[in-house]
Amino acid sequence: MDHLQLFGKIVAKRSFLCVGLDTEVEKIPSFLMKYKDPVYEFNKRIIDATHQYAVAYKPNIAFYECYGIKGWISLESTLKYIRKKYPGIFVIADAKRSDIGNTSKMYARTFLENMAFDAVTVAPYMGEDSVTPFLSYKNKWVILLALTSNKGADDFQYHNEDGIKLFERVLSVSKKWGSVDNLMYVVGATRADMLKEIRKIVPDHFLLVPGIGAQGGNLEEVARYGMNSKCGLLVNSSREIIFADDSRKFDKIAGEKAGEIQQEMEQYLAERSLI
Amino acid sequence: MDHLQLFGKIVAKRSFLCVGLDTEVEKIPSFLMKYKDPVYEFNKRIIDATHQYAVAYKPNIAFYECYGIKGWISLESTLKYIRKKYPGIFVIADAKRSDIGNTSKMYARTFLENMAFDAVTVAPYMGEDSVTPFLSYKNKWVILLALTSNKGADDFQYHNEDGIKLFERVLSVSKKWGSVDNLMYVVGATRADMLKEIRKIVPDHFLLVPGIGAQGGNLEEVARYGMNSKCGLLVNSSREIIFADDSRKFDKIAGEKAGEIQQEMEQYLAERSLI
Repeated sequence: MDHLQLFGKIVAKRSFLCVGLDTEVEKIPSFLMKYKDPVYEFNKRIIDATHQYAVAYKPNIAFYECYGIKGWISLESTLKYIRKKYPGIFVIADAKRSDIGNTSKMYARTFLENMAFDAVTVAPYMGEDSVTPFLSYKNKWVILLALTSNKGADDFQYHNEDGIKLFERVLSVSKKWGSVDNLMYVVGATRADMLKEIRKIVPDHFLLVPGIGAQGGNLEEVARYGMNSKCGLLVNSSREIIFADDSRKFDKIAGEKAGEIQQEMEQYLAERSLI
Repeated sequence: MDHLQLFGKIVAKRSFLCVGLDTEVEKIPSFLMKYKDPVYEFNKRIIDATHQYAVAYKPNIAFYECYGIKGWISLESTLKYIRKKYPGIFVIADAKRSDIGNTSKMYARTFLENMAFDAVTVAPYMGEDSVTPFLSYKNKWVILLALTSNKGADDFQYHNEDGIKLFERVLSVSKKWGSVDNLMYVVGATRADMLKEIRKIVPDHFLLVPGIGAQGGNLEEVARYGMNSKCGLLVNSSREIIFADDSRKFDKIAGEKAGEIQQEMEQYLAERSLI
């Protein structure tokens, strides 16, 4: 999928919502615990209830890896379910991996080949040869951390050399490694004020924006400062949607919550005449 | 295990060698392929042949994750084997994880609680709240990336604010998050010239040093510039030991290779009067 095809999906769904499947067993409604794989059963229902509002799903690998072999089975089953039932949807492995070249190659194989995700999130600290093995896959994407949504982003990401902050350097250096069709960036919604500067460096790249909802980011600001002529945004919401309710109606409520966000997104797309 | 206990193990074995278990199925001697779990059979023989020269083992998680559920079984079996047969050995999950706080918590649980590694490598880009969840485990270690051994280290790790390079900032800021008993740093052997500067910032912390052998780093220089009064070094070698030979005698040759490195290490420890 290239960036124009991704934009096509956004137009078709009138949404740039990515639903984060950060499924913690402890938070799953108790009636699902009777199933063999409660995480999968939970995800399936969340996906069925939200797919019409979402252009992407993003399981965070930590929440699966944590349950060992069982967790990997839940993850693979979830991916297969999306592929089979909703084949057009963009699926991101939020793994934040990276290592020296021959090791990053193994991580790339895991997520982009063996598990066939469309994209994987990658940490930039180790530089070019830690990232490029992920970029060697056709029609696959690297989503590189630039400016993250957490408080700790202040510790190193603003480290400033001659007026250039580290995250700005990550953007300007790394954009040469790939193209607008295989490289996007993580920019936290909690840093919406920086989106104007970021758009000067990467005007045409897609941005994956976590942090609305539970983390306090504001969708309206993200759209105002981050949207480009091909939308250029995937905005992620996890807990706010998937754990909106813990009763038997959790999926219905999750769907309603996703629908509300989609409605707001549709408005911003319309204001920019993108739909 | 605190840093004095780790030093005690170094003294006892007259070695600060960490053997990297970066086991690629493609490189395993063919006679092992008849076993149900060739990766585990390979690791077991490597461990038996090298344990008297090694104070630590470091499986890089990428090489296991890549084989899906089978890979995780190989990893768990390997860890159990070390725990049972050689209980005093320090075992590091080379995972290079990190994420926002509630997610790092899950990664910490995976490696330090569920799998009971002694230590996990962590990437610093996302700052304090991405690292501290790993530090909340008693008698466990975070090994934070500072200056890595690969070429890409030049891209961002030297980003220089008022004379302070990013990796130096990582050291000086992060050392407040933990202590010499639960925090060490990755410094590539290929950057031995920087060890003098690094020791000014973290004189007493242990350093995990990858990159001797295949990657071109020099053990003598690492010892000269990096060793402190409690040794303060774990030097890793992976490919140079475990893939030194691919015949039926691969384990014997691996043991000899590890023995050679131990001999050299013993000499540097003796020169410093640490043994």
